[in-house]
Amino acid sequence: MKLKLSLLSLLSVALVILGNVDGGNVLVWPAEGSHWINLKPVIETLTDRGHSVTILVPNATLYMDTRKPERFNSLRFNTSISEKDLDDFFEEFLQFEMYESHQMNVLQKYVKFYEFLSKDQDFFLQYCDGVLKSPAVMDKLREGKFDLILADPLLPCAELAAEVLGVPFIFTFRFSVAHAVERMCGQSPAPPSYAPGIMSKLTDKMSFFERVVSLLFYLTNDAMSVRLWKTYDDYYTEYLSRPTSYCELMGKADIWLIRTYWDFEYPRPLLPNFIYVGGLHCRPAKPLPQDLEEFVQSSGDDGIVVFSLGSFIRNLTKERSNVIASAFGQIPQKVFWKYLGEKPDNLAPNTRIYDWIPQNDLLGHPKTRAFVTHGGTNGVYEAIYHGVPMVGIPIFADQTDNMVHMKAKGAAVFLNFNSLQAQDLVDALKTVINDPSYKESVMRLSRIHHDRPVKPLDEAVFWIEYVMRNKGAGHLRVASHSLNWYQYHSLDVLVFLISILALVFYIIIRTCSFLIRRCCRTPKHKSKRE
Amino acid sequence: MKLKLSLLSLLSVALVILGNVDGGNVLVWPAEGSHWINLKPVIETLTDRGHSVTILVPNATLYMDTRKPERFNSLRFNTSISEKDLDDFFEEFLQFEMYESHQMNVLQKYVKFYEFLSKDQDFFLQYCDGVLKSPAVMDKLREGKFDLILADPLLPCAELAAEVLGVPFIFTFRFSVAHAVERMCGQSPAPPSYAPGIMSKLTDKMSFFERVVSLLFYLTNDAMSVRLWKTYDDYYTEYLSRPTSYCELMGKADIWLIRTYWDFEYPRPLLPNFIYVGGLHCRPAKPLPQDLEEFVQSSGDDGIVVFSLGSFIRNLTKERSNVIASAFGQIPQKVFWKYLGEKPDNLAPNTRIYDWIPQNDLLGHPKTRAFVTHGGTNGVYEAIYHGVPMVGIPIFADQTDNMVHMKAKGAAVFLNFNSLQAQDLVDALKTVINDPSYKESVMRLSRIHHDRPVKPLDEAVFWIEYVMRNKGAGHLRVASHSLNWYQYHSLDVLVFLISILALVFYIIIRTCSFLIRRCCRTPKHKSKRE
Repeated sequence: MKLKLSLLSLLSVALVILGNVDGGNVLVWPAEGSHWINLKPVIETLTDRGHSVTILVPNATLYMDTRKPERFNSLRFNTSISEKDLDDFFEEFLQFEMYESHQMNVLQKYVKFYEFLSKDQDFFLQYCDGVLKSPAVMDKLREGKFDLILADPLLPCAELAAEVLGVPFIFTFRFSVAHAVERMCGQSPAPPSYAPGIMSKLTDKMSFFERVVSLLFYLTNDAMSVRLWKTYDDYYTEYLSRPTSYCELMGKADIWLIRTYWDFEYPRPLLPNFIYVGGLHCRPAKPLPQDLEEFVQSSGDDGIVVFSLGSFIRNLTKERSNVIASAFGQIPQKVFWKYLGEKPDNLAPNTRIYDWIPQNDLLGHPKTRAFVTHGGTNGVYEAIYHGVPMVGIPIFADQTDNMVHMKAKGAAVFLNFNSLQAQDLVDALKTVINDPSYKESVMRLSRIHHDRPVKPLDEAVFWIEYVMRNKGAGHLRVASHSLNWYQYHSLDVLVFLISILALVFYIIIRTCSFLIRRCCRTPKHKSKRE
Repeated sequence: MKLKLSLLSLLSVALVILGNVDGGNVLVWPAEGSHWINLKPVIETLTDRGHSVTILVPNATLYMDTRKPERFNSLRFNTSISEKDLDDFFEEFLQFEMYESHQMNVLQKYVKFYEFLSKDQDFFLQYCDGVLKSPAVMDKLREGKFDLILADPLLPCAELAAEVLGVPFIFTFRFSVAHAVERMCGQSPAPPSYAPGIMSKLTDKMSFFERVVSLLFYLTNDAMSVRLWKTYDDYYTEYLSRPTSYCELMGKADIWLIRTYWDFEYPRPLLPNFIYVGGLHCRPAKPLPQDLEEFVQSSGDDGIVVFSLGSFIRNLTKERSNVIASAFGQIPQKVFWKYLGEKPDNLAPNTRIYDWIPQNDLLGHPKTRAFVTHGGTNGVYEAIYHGVPMVGIPIFADQTDNMVHMKAKGAAVFLNFNSLQAQDLVDALKTVINDPSYKESVMRLSRIHHDRPVKPLDEAVFWIEYVMRNKGAGHLRVASHSLNWYQYHSLDVLVFLISILALVFYIIIRTCSFLIRRCCRTPKHKSKRE
């Protein structure tokens, strides 16, 4: 059976373009790094569709470059954080993730990681102050009469602002560690036996001991999350002058736009207001600039390899970059390397370094044979979209976990950034390029990605507009938000039922023993009398 | 903000019409009653889209009237059941549900209900024999080279046939009692604390004692289901000559097309391969035949009431029909009553009885003020689609539970069929017609029903074609199918972890007590020496 997907896709776009609503008024909460990159296609599409979009922009930001003229309004706010503070923090974090953590044991890594998260929180709360404690900014937000707040929950307080302004809100969300926010605040169930927590590096098929690790991973991260959220609980409670919590307000989100899909994710339970829109930023490849196209064509039948460690990592040590350059020199493909660091001494003629590459267009080029990636979700989705096998060199956050997913699905191999030697990378590239199973697997994922009733960007926009049209989406929100944890798991009911059973059992035992004693005594008396 | 939904709907249809696949080959498992009525729009649409559809039709059937020329092929098979057997069974069942059960206590009803289910099974296994144990029919099924089996799991063995033929299969499913099949075979989670079992008559907002009832309802029905399924387990195991079970084979379904949606259902967890397509049979109202339209118009501003007890119930006792007729005589509306029984003596001039009514077109008429219904899902969905408040007179199966849903959502009141008096029905009708909250609530449900990214029929067809295009939809199937119940709930892991903890605790206690004993003894020796 043939697949006529092009028409389907075309109409799917048309569906959203024509199923219009009169211009809504959207407030976008600030985001940073790849989270901002991922938000942009959504807000660009909202602008295309005639909505007014206002973005909250802090004084210090590394990615939210709104100095160049954009089609959306920005509302600036001040914090005590400078761009240098941000740079220093991220540099320290990257140094830890890229090099230092390599020499630590699991417990040390874990403690250090939560130290970073804790420091993150201090930054985040300054952002919150910048918006919520500035009467001028809050006045503007009130005057703005927004229909919706759109937020990536990497930064907190969107839910607090929504509560104060009385505006519905939608999250666009990649993940929280061990799905803690999605589970505990969003009420989305995740049985540890087959739905492992994000960053656990487990798959959905687990041995007994992997299931032990899965449960422990959930328990330890939940404990840590509850501890970290205490800071937010206090902030929110103080701000609203009534007892509340981070989770309570997060749980009021109308829709959670989860930025994965079943091409990438292991199948798992979801809730009706969790909409999986992974890969919404992907689009068909555009023709390359002439110089790049010429370099691609010079590769002949061998084709090209694309290498990028993402938007965050600008630099490597000389030793690491030399190892990587040496590996690329040993393969027959031409290599496009996106890199802002110093050019390695041993760069081979088949490898060219660029400050920036049109990654999506390169991955969509028919001559692309493999993608060497840090494993960020955005890049992984571009590889899935275009059907390119991957070699992962994951570094931080969810990247290793993402590569575990791709490896489990047969679309990638991955290496350890710190220990990899040139030959490892050469072998990995040869494997994914020459073993046809990798191409077949990633093409299967690509078919899953494309073959769905509505395209992810269209579905995201549909639900954003739905919430604006209907002032919320309460009909999708589960009633368990009003239960506490032991009520949710029916533990109080179980205790009650077991108590009743025990009581009945006790009464039966006592009655029986009483009757037995009576029966046994009587003959004695009788015999005495006799 | 205005809603331009008509264009959206139009394109949504176009999406499916044009996103075509070359003709697939679909085998439809037999169904009966409203289940057959519900299957028809799907298979009609599949035929419209160029697929070849073959329906398995037993020698005895009450609803699958394939004698009149249809556009799909039928493949007849024989069973030892006659139409009279079916009629007798259903008559006995209806007598029980309509009149006898009214005088029983809960336990008696429960036992009798499971007796009927058990008798049902005997019929069902004769259908299975008719197909699976007939070499001629099985040869035809093998020669048919089907791409897909589409089945309503009311009748078993579709999953067994799919296993034997090596063909993927899709369920189109309203419910099993307490979601037993969906939960235990389909692995779809349902926390008893807020996702009550179907037929429990509970809502998603429960008091402590309702949560006790919810858990007990699940536990007792699960025990009963496991007992009933044992018959199928044995049949399947014997047929395949290897140990297997009903649930194991049911769990291999690629897609479960669940025939409700969040307009009707309380929000609850779902799995990626559970697609909610409730109301797929609904369509815009067509103009009425002239005589009906004239009767409608004669109602003036008061409008009309539509009354039907569904396709199953043909007759009422004289006493019950008189009570109902008397109530209708007391309201200002004109009444359309679909009824095959004897005309009540006291039928008022405002009420007309019909053998058949174009129910969907009547409910879609702007003069319709209320729908008096037995509460079957098909009728409830037509009322939601057209936004008509309901008065329920539920009789059997999920009907009371359906009306509990509609009452909880503010779109209906409902009455007890056996005890209702004329004044109760008059009051109920006046309430839903004159209290605007009922119309507002059902219009809210109607908006939820219509305002979704893809129309339910289109979504059902999309996934049917998806499975044919891709020979399955394994990427949506959770890995928990390979876990048993204690592994699923991580109980083995918990026992292991608690054992480790207990052991560590034991060793610490023993070590401490040993050290304490040593410390305490030494001074004694010393003191002796001294």
